[in-house]
Amino acid sequence: MRKDPIRVKGTKPNRRSFLKGMAVAAAGGAAAGRVGATGPDPAIVEKQPWMQYLGEGVDAHPYGTPSPHEAHVVRRNVEWLTADPVSSVNFTPIHELDGIITPNGLCFERHHAGIAEVDPSQHRLMINGLVDTPLVFTMEDLARFPRENHVYFLECAANSGMEWRGAQLNGCQFTHGMIHNVMYTGVPLRLILEEAGVKSSAAWVLPEGADASAMTRSIPLEKAMDDCLVAFKMNGEALRPEQGYPVRLVVPGWEGNMWVKWLRRIEVGDQPWHHREETSKYTDLLPDGRARRFTWEMDAKSVITSPSPQAPIPHGPGHTVVTGLAWSGRGTIPRVDVSLDGGVNWHQARMSGPSLTKSLHRFYHEFDWDGRPLLLQSRAHDSTGYVQPTKDMLRELRGENSIYHNNGIQTWAVSEQGIAENVEVS
Amino acid sequence: MRKDPIRVKGTKPNRRSFLKGMAVAAAGGAAAGRVGATGPDPAIVEKQPWMQYLGEGVDAHPYGTPSPHEAHVVRRNVEWLTADPVSSVNFTPIHELDGIITPNGLCFERHHAGIAEVDPSQHRLMINGLVDTPLVFTMEDLARFPRENHVYFLECAANSGMEWRGAQLNGCQFTHGMIHNVMYTGVPLRLILEEAGVKSSAAWVLPEGADASAMTRSIPLEKAMDDCLVAFKMNGEALRPEQGYPVRLVVPGWEGNMWVKWLRRIEVGDQPWHHREETSKYTDLLPDGRARRFTWEMDAKSVITSPSPQAPIPHGPGHTVVTGLAWSGRGTIPRVDVSLDGGVNWHQARMSGPSLTKSLHRFYHEFDWDGRPLLLQSRAHDSTGYVQPTKDMLRELRGENSIYHNNGIQTWAVSEQGIAENVEVS
Repeated sequence: MRKDPIRVKGTKPNRRSFLKGMAVAAAGGAAAGRVGATGPDPAIVEKQPWMQYLGEGVDAHPYGTPSPHEAHVVRRNVEWLTADPVSSVNFTPIHELDGIITPNGLCFERHHAGIAEVDPSQHRLMINGLVDTPLVFTMEDLARFPRENHVYFLECAANSGMEWRGAQLNGCQFTHGMIHNVMYTGVPLRLILEEAGVKSSAAWVLPEGADASAMTRSIPLEKAMDDCLVAFKMNGEALRPEQGYPVRLVVPGWEGNMWVKWLRRIEVGDQPWHHREETSKYTDLLPDGRARRFTWEMDAKSVITSPSPQAPIPHGPGHTVVTGLAWSGRGTIPRVDVSLDGGVNWHQARMSGPSLTKSLHRFYHEFDWDGRPLLLQSRAHDSTGYVQPTKDMLRELRGENSIYHNNGIQTWAVSEQGIAENVEVS
Repeated sequence: MRKDPIRVKGTKPNRRSFLKGMAVAAAGGAAAGRVGATGPDPAIVEKQPWMQYLGEGVDAHPYGTPSPHEAHVVRRNVEWLTADPVSSVNFTPIHELDGIITPNGLCFERHHAGIAEVDPSQHRLMINGLVDTPLVFTMEDLARFPRENHVYFLECAANSGMEWRGAQLNGCQFTHGMIHNVMYTGVPLRLILEEAGVKSSAAWVLPEGADASAMTRSIPLEKAMDDCLVAFKMNGEALRPEQGYPVRLVVPGWEGNMWVKWLRRIEVGDQPWHHREETSKYTDLLPDGRARRFTWEMDAKSVITSPSPQAPIPHGPGHTVVTGLAWSGRGTIPRVDVSLDGGVNWHQARMSGPSLTKSLHRFYHEFDWDGRPLLLQSRAHDSTGYVQPTKDMLRELRGENSIYHNNGIQTWAVSEQGIAENVEVS
């Protein structure tokens, strides 16, 4: 395996040695002085160069793009993770983002046969199986149903999967970036199933994708009739090709693999199909060789996005902002706690932004950093009362074989220089 | 003036002749049959071509872009509206969007000297005037203040300005597209002013932009200390260059011109400055020659985005979805009414999506179209009890000289063929 800057230093991660070796920082050290320089800056009084000439006009960018100064804010893949980029994943740069909306161009991708190049005028969605009348819809047909708008997170079940066996990737983009959060516009799946007429013996549905992998997953009819959407817009505009253009399934709160992209068919049946992606994959292998199956709901989870290994503290001691994301597949996040000392003391974080069910939530913790090393952690509480566990609590229950559903508390060690690194504490 | 497809047909718009000449459609005609074809479609049973090959991998698009099939969904400017594209406007394609979030690449632009090309490492924000300590901030300094996340609409005061003198532009992109709605992340302006210390004689602030127009607007201190943000993110990522990268002022609910982009300086004073953009411009000329000034708040408004002149009904009679946007600078929109017959009968629309203060709201009205002509209108009610007026009510109060603050009810005439046109009824 070749060296990679995103790897944690050292070839063999030792997830239990870190806390012993460092001085734990006290929360709330000496307050720093005023933020900002006092008095007028010559660079301000003399106008900056870009005030001396006319910029581009309103005809220059029919569809806009980010500033060239933001060229580093991109999805990134990790070459050694998979054999091929066509069946692989890349990661949302959550360390560079704020608020709760993920811009469409930065939503992580997970493909099993690459991005299907679907022509929407030729695309069809078929409903078949245990229905009164099999139906085939064009995209124009779908636009005639009542539609709804909801902000939901989509998290890959394998997000943080490398963390089961200890800190292995350096950067929350890589440890927690298989997640995005957008506003979907779509038709409740219930209305489409009702149009076809679901037979009384029906209990499951099987959505199928129009990519070369023909992705399928079994979903209980109860969930299909509850809050699933057949969605064609994200953040206002058409779905992006890599997110299932022109139409995908939205399965709020449940693992991303079930949100079938390029949705071409929904079969209604009376039992689960047990296809490849719900047997050999997307099940959780336990230490005794048995596997948990149907682990669909995403448990409450959180991560500090800044400071983090890709987002060091750029200033010295004084006013410091800690921020991060929290979410739960079961509802909202009324509370997040932040620790500066590896879980010894906890501070209730400040939430800011809309609190929407099965959506990302943004939290902040501001403190006066005294410049001593930190062990940053966050802990989410969801609206059911569930509290995010430590990784060791999860390992006790499930061992270290799985690659799915790791929602354990993440730790970043911050040095006196403000450099953060992925570590484990126990 | 050259011919333009977005112009309403006929060189001289006659805003009062339309209703007489058409049969008014009855609401809720004969219900159409099932949506979608019955039985499996051969195109579905035989796999589509894009299922036969592997698509692009996760390394193909570090920053994603829309499908080539969506190339028509872009901002558009109207050449004859202004002398030059550098001091001009383009329009959000609201007829193609759904939900309430505007994607960053499609947010309309209004520049007075083109897009400033600011280097964030060289950019500074200065606070001066009636403060205890003048201060200069780098972008890193700003990131040390506590920040908040809010979804707000930004509407140009001139949005729908051409409609004062009758229906002149065909398409809601052009009549109502000087609006966008994103989630901002920023520092409350109050915190930054408090850091400098505001003197007791202070009553106004003057934000200044770092573009070649050095845009300035006077804002009452009360508003500055209430909900204004010094924002550096939109929809999660850095502001786009055309939206003020790296930092802009957010003035929730107030006209867009005050949301100074490329924010370089905020002067604190004891009276308004009466600069160019708040005297010769952004005031409302009344019939008697006097002008309304300080008309900052955007009144409640709505528009049907589909069907509309750029978004005809693509199908015949039967299930039909009417959708649109509503907003108010004073709060939320608890209710929107839709009329199919030019304001004779009103139906309460269905709202869908988060209801956030000073944000766009999405409404829908589903009905069974009988195929007869329609006169579509929408009417917003805001949380203060204010009801969107007709254009004629506005003209009675303010005449037809103004180009600002036209929040009148918009009418689309829909033909039996489903073609929509901008018309006026009275």
